Amino acid sequence: MIKIIVDCFGGDHCPQAPVEAAIKALEANKDLFLILTGEEGLIRKELEGKSYDDTRLEIIHAPEVIGCDEKPTDAVRLKRNSSMMKAIILLRDRDDIAAMVSTGSTGALVTGALVRLGRIPGIIRPAFCPILPTMNGGLVGICDSGANVEVTSAHLRQFAIMASLYMENVYGVKNPRTALLNVGKEAEKGDDIRREAYAMLKETPSVNFVGNMESRDLLSGSYDVVVADGFSGNVLVKTTEGTALELLKKLKKDIYSRTIYKIGALLMKKMFADEKKFMNYQNYGGSVLLGTSKVVVKGHGSSKTAAIVKCIEQAYRMEVSKLSGKIETEIAKYEHYEL
Amino acid sequence: MIKIIVDCFGGDHCPQAPVEAAIKALEANKDLFLILTGEEGLIRKELEGKSYDDTRLEIIHAPEVIGCDEKPTDAVRLKRNSSMMKAIILLRDRDDIAAMVSTGSTGALVTGALVRLGRIPGIIRPAFCPILPTMNGGLVGICDSGANVEVTSAHLRQFAIMASLYMENVYGVKNPRTALLNVGKEAEKGDDIRREAYAMLKETPSVNFVGNMESRDLLSGSYDVVVADGFSGNVLVKTTEGTALELLKKLKKDIYSRTIYKIGALLMKKMFADEKKFMNYQNYGGSVLLGTSKVVVKGHGSSKTAAIVKCIEQAYRMEVSKLSGKIETEIAKYEHYEL
Repeated sequence: MIKIIVDCFGGDHCPQAPVEAAIKALEANKDLFLILTGEEGLIRKELEGKSYDDTRLEIIHAPEVIGCDEKPTDAVRLKRNSSMMKAIILLRDRDDIAAMVSTGSTGALVTGALVRLGRIPGIIRPAFCPILPTMNGGLVGICDSGANVEVTSAHLRQFAIMASLYMENVYGVKNPRTALLNVGKEAEKGDDIRREAYAMLKETPSVNFVGNMESRDLLSGSYDVVVADGFSGNVLVKTTEGTALELLKKLKKDIYSRTIYKIGALLMKKMFADEKKFMNYQNYGGSVLLGTSKVVVKGHGSSKTAAIVKCIEQAYRMEVSKLSGKIETEIAKYEHYEL
Repeated sequence: MIKIIVDCFGGDHCPQAPVEAAIKALEANKDLFLILTGEEGLIRKELEGKSYDDTRLEIIHAPEVIGCDEKPTDAVRLKRNSSMMKAIILLRDRDDIAAMVSTGSTGALVTGALVRLGRIPGIIRPAFCPILPTMNGGLVGICDSGANVEVTSAHLRQFAIMASLYMENVYGVKNPRTALLNVGKEAEKGDDIRREAYAMLKETPSVNFVGNMESRDLLSGSYDVVVADGFSGNVLVKTTEGTALELLKKLKKDIYSRTIYKIGALLMKKMFADEKKFMNYQNYGGSVLLGTSKVVVKGHGSSKTAAIVKCIEQAYRMEVSKLSGKIETEIAKYEHYEL
């Protein structure tokens, strides 16, 4: 039995979406035990009248909620009774719990996880690794995408190792083609950090390093893992999501501008629905935090039920595949760098 | 009469596209005089049989071409007889020439311009400012997008001043809403450079600073200028272009997958053609290099005739609006920082 905590507050559709997601996940996977954190009364109200296996569900009362605008360090220090901080502390203190899922404040989650959970031995900096769909039906993981706005080449190498193991063990991608995000393909492009990382990655047998990637090629299907500092990785992921969303909105608006387009769109209804589903990044699960001592999955703040189910599945697969142990083993093969 | 050099070699459709663009631009604007650099025989061959005002066209023979893979510093040092370096040197040496347009190697152009042309007094670092269309029909300029992979907060402030003046004087955007690219909207987001730049921009009356921008909002129409370091700015622009292109390709492929979709798409033919035009970033001109002593416009390597005409028009408008002088005046209002 794998035990996972679901933080039921902090996201846009809370506690309805996480509670519903928990019920669906429990139903789909009999090997799962879920612990819900948050205001117990509100969680029980959501559960009311719904059928679920209550021998595999535990509720931990945590009345406070962390707002999106709260300073992460304050949230970690002052809001120990929040659904998120309680989840992190439970995850740290209880050996029977393997992972947690949250749709709350990213900053508070990263800070809390770093301060309270600690890291896999050898890991200098945990990093986020969200997944995007590529145009040939594959997936690409981007690591880091926001946990570390400043990095060294040693950090980038560790991101590459962690994300490669993640894509291989959780998504079954064999020997993931791993690239370094840069402003051009040539080895000498970018700043000193990029040039150093390029040289180091070429000498890292744990990683199938295929060179630099220009951001325009992210969705091409030529890459399984992209390694980046948290600042430009964040720009890469959010620009992709934002552009896809804005273009879909524009298409919709343009379709409504003329009757003939509306008729045409009617014939293509299924296709447009498929495109919308394809471009809805919630369908690809959350952004996992790689490198913390226990598994942390961050769902988008706007996650609805299905997206949170995906996050729970991700956390489950990470635990079952023993990803943390594999990361520790690979990282130990390389010299350690100080923070 | 405004004199502009068109580098006729280095791009994908050379010399056909730049030569045709020159003819079209001369026809559209009687106040324009163009100087074409490159292998004279090939340029003359392209001109053959075409009608144009030869009193406003000059050809300067420059037989060498700079390849995309050549090291910029080598190109600048060793290829003085290339169409691009000859153009840069002419621009520097001849007072009657105002600007140049090139679709050749970006690296060679930046390095050549910095080494040979020098900067507007007070400017620490020239920066690229490409333009993208927003979803409400406006435009947004992104500065820097690749000339400086490493920056300081003082550089970012200068980029903001230059790009604001550019959008106002060349595109008629009144009081351009200027944002700093960051990983979140709050003032304390990002690294020290971003936090410093945020504080400085708030105290810069020459700029209508509206705060941090998350990359997902680039096309929303809420911003006229986005300020970034050259690395993340490059990621921002190329990800937007790449995502739009990949999605259009996917739509096209999906349309061809079923007959009913093909019929639907037929009814929407004009709409799809409009979308394609809208998302073709060549229609918005080149990426101007702001801050060099004379005007330099970089067209995309894949630019066809119409795109190069746009670049020539941009260079013309920059010169006519006396942008360089206005940049010098505004920059002089702030303390100068050393490189």
